Order: sequence, then C-alpha cells, then structure tokens
Amino acid sequence: MKSVLLTGFEPFDRETVNPSIEAVLAVEAAGICGVRLVTAELPCAFDTSAEQMRRLLEQHRPDLIVAVGQAGGRTELTLERVAINLDDARIPDNAGAQPIDRPVVAGGPAAYFSSLPLKATVQALRKGGIPASVSYTAGTFVCNHLFYALMHEVATLQRVCRAGFVHVPYLPAQAAAHPGQPSMALATMVEGLRLVVSTALSVAQDTRESAGQLH
Amino acid sequence: MKSVLLTGFEPFDRETVNPSIEAVLAVEAAGICGVRLVTAELPCAFDTSAEQMRRLLEQHRPDLIVAVGQAGGRTELTLERVAINLDDARIPDNAGAQPIDRPVVAGGPAAYFSSLPLKATVQALRKGGIPASVSYTAGTFVCNHLFYALMHEVATLQRVCRAGFVHVPYLPAQAAAHPGQPSMALATMVEGLRLVVSTALSVAQDTRESAGQLH
Amino acid sequence: MKSVLLTGFEPFDRETVNPSIEAVLAVEAAGICGVRLVTAELPCAFDTSAEQMRRLLEQHRPDLIVAVGQAGGRTELTLERVAINLDDARIPDNAGAQPIDRPVVAGGPAAYFSSLPLKATVQALRKGGIPASVSYTAGTFVCNHLFYALMHEVATLQRVCRAGFVHVPYLPAQAAAHPGQPSMALATMVEGLRLVVSTALSVAQDTRESAGQLH
Amino acid sequence: MKSVLLTGFEPFDRETVNPSIEAVLAVEAAGICGVRLVTAELPCAFDTSAEQMRRLLEQHRPDLIVAVGQAGGRTELTLERVAINLDDARIPDNAGAQPIDRPVVAGGPAAYFSSLPLKATVQALRKGGIPASVSYTAGTFVCNHLFYALMHEVATLQRVCRAGFVHVPYLPAQAAAHPGQPSMALATMVEGLRLVVSTALSVAQDTRESAGQLH
Repeated sequence: MKSVLLTGFEPFDRETVNPSIEAVLAVEAAGICGVRLVTAELPCAFDTSAEQMRRLLEQHRPDLIVAVGQAGGRTELTLERVAINLDDARIPDNAGAQPIDRPVVAGGPAAYFSSLPLKATVQALRKGGIPASVSYTAGTFVCNHLFYALMHEVATLQRVCRAGFVHVPYLPAQAAAHPGQPSMALATMVEGLRLVVSTALSVAQDTRESAGQLH
Repeated sequence: MKSVLLTGFEPFDRETVNPSIEAVLAVEAAGICGVRLVTAELPCAFDTSAEQMRRLLEQHRPDLIVAVGQAGGRTELTLERVAINLDDARIPDNAGAQPIDRPVVAGGPAAYFSSLPLKATVQALRKGGIPASVSYTAGTFVCNHLFYALMHEVATLQRVCRAGFVHVPYLPAQAAAHPGQPSMALATMVEGLRLVVSTALSVAQDTRESAGQLH
Repeated sequence: MKSVLLTGFEPFDRETVNPSIEAVLAVEAAGICGVRLVTAELPCAFDTSAEQMRRLLEQHRPDLIVAVGQAGGRTELTLERVAINLDDARIPDNAGAQPIDRPVVAGGPAAYFSSLPLKATVQALRKGGIPASVSYTAGTFVCNHLFYALMHEVATLQRVCRAGFVHVPYLPAQAAAHPGQPSMALATMVEGLRLVVSTALSVAQDTRESAGQLH
Repeated sequence: MKSVLLTGFEPFDRETVNPSIEAVLAVEAAGICGVRLVTAELPCAFDTSAEQMRRLLEQHRPDLIVAVGQAGGRTELTLERVAINLDDARIPDNAGAQPIDRPVVAGGPAAYFSSLPLKATVQALRKGGIPASVSYTAGTFVCNHLFYALMHEVATLQRVCRAGFVHVPYLPAQAAAHPGQPSMALATMVEGLRLVVSTALSVAQDTRESAGQLH
C-alpha cells in the first residue's frame, strides 16, 4: 500500500480560513482507496514549515508528497512546476519573519522542478471537469519556501518518491469578502486533490504535450 | 403563498451546458419553503426568449421574476442593475439571428432598472459566503434583450411585482475547457439563487449603501 | 467652421493629475485643422460639473461635444455608449458629496445613448493604431453623471449637435504608482481624441457592424 | 567607457512588429551618454537566438547585457528575476521548432537569477513615471531560453559582467488589433530601457526591499 503525505497551511494574511488545509482534511476524511494517507497542517512561517516537513518525511517515509497552499486571486488548481531558492516576503509570515532576498537553502541549487506528472494530471483534472493549469511561479513567500525545502529534502533521500506543490484558489466565503475575486468550492478542490494523488500514483511517465507559456 | 418565476437559458456559444438553467432546475428540485416556484428554460434566441417570457408572465402571474443567464468570464453572481434598449450581437443567437444596433422594443424607453433589492441581496449573499456584486451592464446579447423585455412587460402590468436578472459564472466543467477562466460550483449558485429569491420576498425597502462603480 | 467643445476633469481619488484634462489641453494646444475648439476643465463634483456643462453649451453652442474622463484600470480609449439616470458614489466627489441611488435628473429618462458614431470611431482609432473599444457602462460616479446631464441638455436643444463621452486610461506616471495597472501615453490619447473629433465631424451615418458584448 | 549590449527579437506569433527590437533600436538611435552601445536583433528561434547571443558576447565582451522581449498582455516593463532550464513551447518558434520538456542546456543548473539590480531599477523606473515590476516567470518559450542561455554563458566567463532580461508590453498599434489588451508607447519603453541601463551601470549593491509575490 502506497503512503501519501498531504499537507496544507494554517490561515495567513488576515484570513480566518485557509482552503489548503480545509481541502486536505476533507480528502483525509473521505480517504483514498488503496492509499495510506497522512495529513498535516503546517504553520505559515518560513522556518517552522520547512522543519515540520522534514520531520514528517522522516517519520512517515511517504511515496508521494503533495503540499498544498492558498493562491488568492487565481481561478484554478495550479500545479507548480518550479520552486526557486529565494525568499522575498512582501508581508511578514505568521511568526513575524519577513526575509528579503535570502536563499531558502544557502548553497542550494537555484531551483528544483516538481516530480509530479504535471501534464497528465492537468489532463486528468480537466477531463474530470476541474479547472487546472501548470504554473511557473509559486511566488517568493512561504509556499515557494516550503516547496523548495521539500524538493531539496527529497533530493537527498536514498529512495524514490514523488513530490510537488499545488495552489488552490480562495474558497467562495473568502471571495465574498474580496469583491471581484475568483473562488473554487471546497468539493471541487477535494475532487481535484484526489485526482492529483491518483494520477501521481498511477502514471509512470508524464504525458508529452505542451503546457508552456509564451512569457 | 408567493409565486416565483425562475428562468434559465439553454446552452449557446458552442457550450453543451448552460449553468443558468442547471442552477434554476436544481433550485426547483430542492424547492423553497413557502414559495410556489415555476421554472422555465428559455431559448437563447432574441425573439423567442422574449415571447416565452411574456407567455409565462401571463400564465403564472408571478409576484417575483428572476431571470438567470450565463456570463462566462465573470467570477461572481452578478445582479444586473440596468437593461438597455439595444441589441448588438457579436455572435448569432441559437436561431441564427444577429441583430446590430436594433432596439429591443421599438419606441421603448432607453433603459429599465431592476426592481430587485440589489444591495440587500448582495449583502445577504456575501454574508452567506456567496461571492456577489452589482453589475451595470448585462451586455447587448440575448440576456440583456430578455431582461429588457421582461422589465418592459412588467412595467405595463396592472399589478405589483418585482423582477430582475442575475448572471452566473461558468461551471467548473466549462472552465476546465477554457483554461484560466473563473468558475462557480453549481451548489454555490443554487444557494445563491435561493438567497436572491428569499431576500426579494422579505426585504421591502432596499438597503441604502453604495454598490457603485467609478467607471 | 464647426465648433467643438472638449472637456476634461480635474484630478480626483487622491491623484495629482487627471489624464482627461491633460489630453484635452494638449489637443487644444495642437489645434485641429478647420475646427473652432473650445476646452474646459470641469470640477470632479456631481452638481457643479453638470452646471458648468450647461453654461458651456449655452455660451459656445458647439456642433460637437466630447466629454472626457479618467477610467483607471482600463487598457484602451473606451467610447461610452450609454449614460444612466443614476448616481451611486463609492467615494465622495471633490465637493464632499456622495449621493446613493439618486437620479441624475429627477423624472428624466432611465438612460441616453451617445450620439457619436461609435463604431466608425473605434474602426478609425484601431486603424490608426490606437487601442479602443465601445463600453456599455460609464459607472455611477461623476463621469456618468456629467455624461447623462450632457445628453439630457442636448436632448432639449432646438438644434442638431452630436455629443458623447470617452474614458481614457491612467497615464504611465499614474500607473507607476499603482503596480500592475495598465496605462496609455499622453501622445496616444491626444492622437486618439483628434480621431474621435474628426470622425464625428466627417461620418454622417455610423458603420453597421457589431461592437456588442455577450454580457 | 562601459560597453553595453542590448538585444531585441524579431516579430513572432503572427505579429508584424516586435516592440523589443523597436525599442532597442530607438535607444541606439538616441545613444546613452558615456556608454558604448551595441544592439542586435535576434531570431525568435530557440537554437539560433542562443547561438547569436554567444557570438555577440564573444565579439563585444560587454560589461552589461540587457536582453529584451515581448510579453503581450502584460501592462508594465517587467524585469525577470529567474530563468529556468526548461523549454516548453506552446507554439512553434520562427524556425518551426516546438520543443517540449527539454532543458535549455542539458546538465545545466535548474535556474539562474538575473544579476541586474532589479529593485533599484524598479524604484528608478517608478520614480521616473514608467510602470514596472519584478516578474518571477519569463515563461517557457524563446525569451526564457535566451535568458537562460545568456546567464549560463555569463556564468562561465572569466570576467565580471551584469546580465538580465526585460519584458515589454505590446505597442499600442498591436493592442489595437487585440481589443482589450494593454499596451505601452514606444517612447515610454525607450525611456524605461535607458533607465534600466543607467541604473545597472551606477548601482553597485541592489536596494534591500521586497518586490516579492505571495504566489
């Protein structure tokens, strides 16, 4: 039985809810057939989020890790392709830290690419009626930090596992407080995350089709 | 018992589904307590949509009419404030008609305002966690045509009733075929339309607060 | 020789410049061949803007009136098609007034349509390399108020004249203070306004092609 | 006297003009005081653009290299922070090549960061009234390819030089053919590129302030 780690974040930026952890807990409640699922809520803080991820990897030794975070203003599930070795915080994190132009890991490579089968996943999501795209920037805040730290850790492991990061839009109730902003229902996110996990577990070789951007 | 007419449209513009009629039928299936609900699917055609609306008004003599249509690309439920006496079709309607710079009703007033309590409704929707805003243009296609024809008909009735138009976003499955576009889950639309109806039936005088736009 | 009145607005909403009056004054400085040009800066205030417009119409008896205003956030010159009989101010005007749900003219028609040849103008602008579109909402603030008041006044005149409203984007220097917002150079606006005037003076019958919107 | 290489691209994606080379040639025509300026038009083709850049570096040994490209749909000058080792072409390049999921340089690092003083430059641009921001994705087409190839080449040089990539919006005449799209006047781009160059030549240490994104 495959072991899967799904993480979400606690609320930040004056929100009282974070759709990422809501969706992750709802996936856990429903379960995924044939999968041993571990979930965790991470602090929205540069240092402790990465530390907790390292402990979770050590403790659970998952075959697949999908970290999930909130991207308020986006319209779709966005599968991040690349994590960059850069912290540049426009606002303080929940612990009050606001690093500027600091590497996530001093001396680490400039970036890591996701090892999820992104294109097969986007294809499965769209076919399943879930709006989704590949994204080429996870920002420079805690989401990118955690994504980079995760990929860096995985790169040093002695065994094969797949890992990546998915951004989810605001929940409708959040968008109701930010007039004009797009949102996605929790049920749609949950269905989407289940497809992200099942595709990552079943597709060995990613689909060869463009999900590129001109700029 | 109050009588309420809810209408949606058939699919158009190469879509195989129209969220407006899906949401209207789902509201009907669930029912609204204390309300006699009549629903209808209107053709996405300038002439016949307005004709059918006139027949429905005559036949059912509803106290409240909420016409619903699809606004692909919008992020929220948008409550239309004004219907203008202008058809200007960028694409042909489902009957092949493509009127340009033609009045909806020759000799009719230049515009009609919605008689729904728009601000109280937006307030109720946002409080209920449903993204919503007032809109100041319903376009120049069949939605605006039907909205204008409805308000024109209501203006000539000998009895009091409230009427208006609500635009709904794409469903997630539609947005999945239009990468980058926002969407709203059917359940969110249904909950929203129920609040639109109950607010219109319970609020006599609209709230006095701005929902205006600078431009 | 045709007489043309061009008006712009003073700055509002914490801006120190308003592109509309900058562009209008630059058009005046350059002049338009064969045209007697009158320009005026209007206060960004509901009551006094309309009053000054009435005085200008009386004093100069122009053949063509083009009122210009700022639409921060828009990308193009937008030619407004319809003015609605509604004030709904999200912020106070420069005189401190913030009317909500008040008609521009009590007892006036619900709306007026522009009498500029909008489609021929958009065609001429695009052909001239100036981004432009028809817009179906001028908002509910001072721009729409002035536009409605202008069309109402023109409707009562005993002689033929054409009138309309054009929204211009932020200037680059304004957008530089609003990261992410689009802008347009003053020179592009000036060239555009000259084409708006010359097209309105030369095209008797508007082009018959759609500039409509689905919603 | 400092030597500066400015490159732009030939038109692509059915455009007849590319604002990047137009702006670069206009900067050259005007000259920059105290600077030996070399410019070049690069083909919009994965392989040959990088080859020509390598030859230009070898031939001219510039102290500063600013490569410029078109980002249709963006509103501002965007200073790219990171080039990723990935080609993923949504459309074929001008030579007909459409690589998918291919590294720019096999065995190269996952990414390179710009060595321009990005924050000081954005500050100087905004102060100068030019809309500008830092961007965290240059896409996966020829612009990113050239940017990565440039930074890879610079990384292997035996001498110090600064290099980076700037995206420019559509020109107004291009946007006129893409209704709704934002644009920037050539004169604004030229003024902006001059500030990019002068800031890069005069600022030794970049400003320490956030230009980060939450996602």
